[in-house]
Amino acid sequence: MTPPGISPRRFEEALHAFGAAIGDGNVFAAEDDRIAYSDHYSADETRQMPSAALAPASVEEVQAVVRVANEYRVPLWPISRGKNFGYGGAAPALRGSVVLDLSRMKRIAVDEENGTVLLEPGVGFFDLYDHLQDNDIPLWLSVPGNSWGSVAGNALDRGLGYTPYGDHSARICGLEVVLPDGGLVRTGMGAMAGGKTWQLYRHGYGPSWDAMFCQSNFGIVTKLGLWLMSAPETVVGVDLEFDQPDDLGWVVDTVAPLRRDGVIQQSPSMGSWLRSAAVLTTRDEWTDDPGPLGDSVIGAIRDRFGIGWWSLQLRCYGPREMTRAALDVIKRAFNARPVLAMKEARWERGDSPEGSPLTGVPVSFPLANANWHGGRGGHIGYSPVLPPKGDLAIEQFRRTHALYQRYGFDYHGSFAMGERSLTNVNQVLFDRDDRDMMRRMDAFFRALVADARAQGYGEYRTHIEYMDLVASTYDFNDGALRRLNEKVKDALDPNGIIAPGKNGIWPAALRDQAHEA
Amino acid sequence: MTPPGISPRRFEEALHAFGAAIGDGNVFAAEDDRIAYSDHYSADETRQMPSAALAPASVEEVQAVVRVANEYRVPLWPISRGKNFGYGGAAPALRGSVVLDLSRMKRIAVDEENGTVLLEPGVGFFDLYDHLQDNDIPLWLSVPGNSWGSVAGNALDRGLGYTPYGDHSARICGLEVVLPDGGLVRTGMGAMAGGKTWQLYRHGYGPSWDAMFCQSNFGIVTKLGLWLMSAPETVVGVDLEFDQPDDLGWVVDTVAPLRRDGVIQQSPSMGSWLRSAAVLTTRDEWTDDPGPLGDSVIGAIRDRFGIGWWSLQLRCYGPREMTRAALDVIKRAFNARPVLAMKEARWERGDSPEGSPLTGVPVSFPLANANWHGGRGGHIGYSPVLPPKGDLAIEQFRRTHALYQRYGFDYHGSFAMGERSLTNVNQVLFDRDDRDMMRRMDAFFRALVADARAQGYGEYRTHIEYMDLVASTYDFNDGALRRLNEKVKDALDPNGIIAPGKNGIWPAALRDQAHEA
Repeated sequence: MTPPGISPRRFEEALHAFGAAIGDGNVFAAEDDRIAYSDHYSADETRQMPSAALAPASVEEVQAVVRVANEYRVPLWPISRGKNFGYGGAAPALRGSVVLDLSRMKRIAVDEENGTVLLEPGVGFFDLYDHLQDNDIPLWLSVPGNSWGSVAGNALDRGLGYTPYGDHSARICGLEVVLPDGGLVRTGMGAMAGGKTWQLYRHGYGPSWDAMFCQSNFGIVTKLGLWLMSAPETVVGVDLEFDQPDDLGWVVDTVAPLRRDGVIQQSPSMGSWLRSAAVLTTRDEWTDDPGPLGDSVIGAIRDRFGIGWWSLQLRCYGPREMTRAALDVIKRAFNARPVLAMKEARWERGDSPEGSPLTGVPVSFPLANANWHGGRGGHIGYSPVLPPKGDLAIEQFRRTHALYQRYGFDYHGSFAMGERSLTNVNQVLFDRDDRDMMRRMDAFFRALVADARAQGYGEYRTHIEYMDLVASTYDFNDGALRRLNEKVKDALDPNGIIAPGKNGIWPAALRDQAHEA
Repeated sequence: MTPPGISPRRFEEALHAFGAAIGDGNVFAAEDDRIAYSDHYSADETRQMPSAALAPASVEEVQAVVRVANEYRVPLWPISRGKNFGYGGAAPALRGSVVLDLSRMKRIAVDEENGTVLLEPGVGFFDLYDHLQDNDIPLWLSVPGNSWGSVAGNALDRGLGYTPYGDHSARICGLEVVLPDGGLVRTGMGAMAGGKTWQLYRHGYGPSWDAMFCQSNFGIVTKLGLWLMSAPETVVGVDLEFDQPDDLGWVVDTVAPLRRDGVIQQSPSMGSWLRSAAVLTTRDEWTDDPGPLGDSVIGAIRDRFGIGWWSLQLRCYGPREMTRAALDVIKRAFNARPVLAMKEARWERGDSPEGSPLTGVPVSFPLANANWHGGRGGHIGYSPVLPPKGDLAIEQFRRTHALYQRYGFDYHGSFAMGERSLTNVNQVLFDRDDRDMMRRMDAFFRALVADARAQGYGEYRTHIEYMDLVASTYDFNDGALRRLNEKVKDALDPNGIIAPGKNGIWPAALRDQAHEA
């Protein structure tokens, strides 16, 4: 297997040249390697299989790899740790690309006093958590629900967490990037040699590049500055349960102003009953019926876990008197509303760790939801962004719920409440050994994207297989933003070697590879 | 007078073509017009004088102007309202450029429920304030100390205000931009035709462009989405006075963690004694001595205004119990510290407007400080960014204070406390009819920039005359970021028509125009 348009012999030469640059032991081109770097949640792992993988250990080695890639016109697909399951894992958008695995680059430099860290892409959430714990550094992470991936990679892909620092890409401060021509650039205040505010001041002087390297193929990020939250004195809040699907509406309308005005500073997530069940049980414990779960099963699941149709956790972080005051405001807002159950939560400095993503502790057990159907399971993310309005949220729920029903999937949606937006995060669970289900899955996903587009909602992120499809929904002025991205892509990467197809951006030479939308 | 390299006859043709596009009455090319659009705070107004100005009224007219500019290779210098005094006003970095005055574009579309506005560049702070007041919309602005300029222009140039929304460029959400080829693009969720979250979700899908059009010449922003703060229930705080220059150190170390951890959510500014005096009096009321002011005059000024060497105002915004709790935390932090005076401030919904930038009310009287020296006065901004550390702030103060003394200027510095940085905002006051002073001013400014560079501090913004000088201090990897910007500039703007020289970014054809650093 070779990259598109490259002969086996030429590719063999390229692999030798890569080996000369980073050591033959760090070039992986056997069949097993290709499988290891493919999408483990795909029905057909060969579909977006890479032709090889490379694992450089330093920025200089990344630069050397890029030079070779330019010489041989080999497309590289950079990954940090490749754990982005549900969005393609380590696999490239363009079949036959060479995965550039940065997981060996694991340096961590914490500035404790200012609450920042400069990270290499290979640093995982567990690595950084351990580093802070081992060195008694009173800073907290924000981690995603599945926290086994890369801190930098997650931020660059705009992953979300649950603390006030949960909009990870918004906390990026300064990058080091290997450009497609092998040149090295530092953004923001890092553009000054020896600059003292690289991780402290985000905007820099002139155009600001940090967000241009997010969900992007304009360069390879080799160091990422990130702001970390001071360990707070207290974390207080409420765990709320709601009985009816339509409670979603008034809850969104209650939380949105609190979130917008900063009473709630984290991004709460309103999740449905399947969230716990899929992690802690498998489907066959509940029913043998292959169709979507009925009310009696839903009732049984809710009884077992003592949850509502929706569950919501709200938390406030900070000095004791401030979190108490914020909690008072929150409780007042829910006063006399039809809350099924409300339980107060409280953590104070000195208590043993609360141990969940709400307090920045990485966890990986939610990955177990891939086992829901049995067989070789998996999931795919579908996450359109809505205005933070209750009536729109209810409509969104009803429309997508009906699509789940029509295509025979169990509803697995949640609503993440951002400062002025609502992201309807869906993890569609499937059994990839069930060929009929996987065929339905593809049709279902396309129906979901079309449904969002019809409403004027765009996905904030998507699986490698659907990057072109989602990109095609960003269609203002006949795709003006995509043309702008392509113009920059061609200027920076004339040989088209960095992540062709990432988020629907193709280099000139490979533009015909875009999947039909 | 014509743009560089364009004959008078050819320029005459271009002006006719511009007139055909936007109406002859909106083309200004008389001597008086050139003076009107020059830098009124410059010693020599002809130095960066434009050759003409154009005032389109719509995005279509902007596109038409851009097409003509491409045809005739006429460099355009877009301004929103051109009120950016201290940084060059309406004048272009490249002498002979044609000013593109967008001040006729004044549309305002407020989304009251979500707290956002979509603005055209001609909308001033007073316009938007009046619009909110006239329509009883309970949203607050964040305004700069001199608020007579454009809301969009200020955000795009990364202006600062004093409320929790004071980092104006950080509150941008979605742009409409005319690209150098005349094409129209919308960023973020506006990239979807009819998208419902253009002003609600900032990141979009793929690389995020908003910050690339800040301090930039990659396009002409014709609409800007901005988040606005809900009118809070209360604003409470303290006005603090400090007796000694070196109090700066412990105050910075006291405020920095409160600011970083969100107890204080606005960016307080610690200003020195000249701030009030220069606005409310003129220098000759105090002394005839031309040299820097001595201790006795400083003492007299402080007595008259009842202020310290430094003054600091801290404010908390929000529900009553939350601001009370935050104020308690703040007061505890200053407890038993050598505060010269502390006065509590309190505003509640229903009170008459507090009437200052602290509550988002635009003001223009601080412009009066240009009269400090008498004559035709002016000022220039010098604003390096430091880590938020007391010892570094004291050293910065001492070094720059010594430079003020050496070059014979009155110290006029303040320290704006950002989330993880400290911006040492200086407004150097001068009399531009005093030729000796203006000569010293240039040498003084260059000494200040060199001093910051030696410390590893970069300016966040600078005057048109010094854009190349400051750009040259961003020198990592031999100016890698500038080369990256130039590569993008050349790809997007091959004819080099949009704002040549803006923030040190020159198009290929004019790269020899860069001022020697």
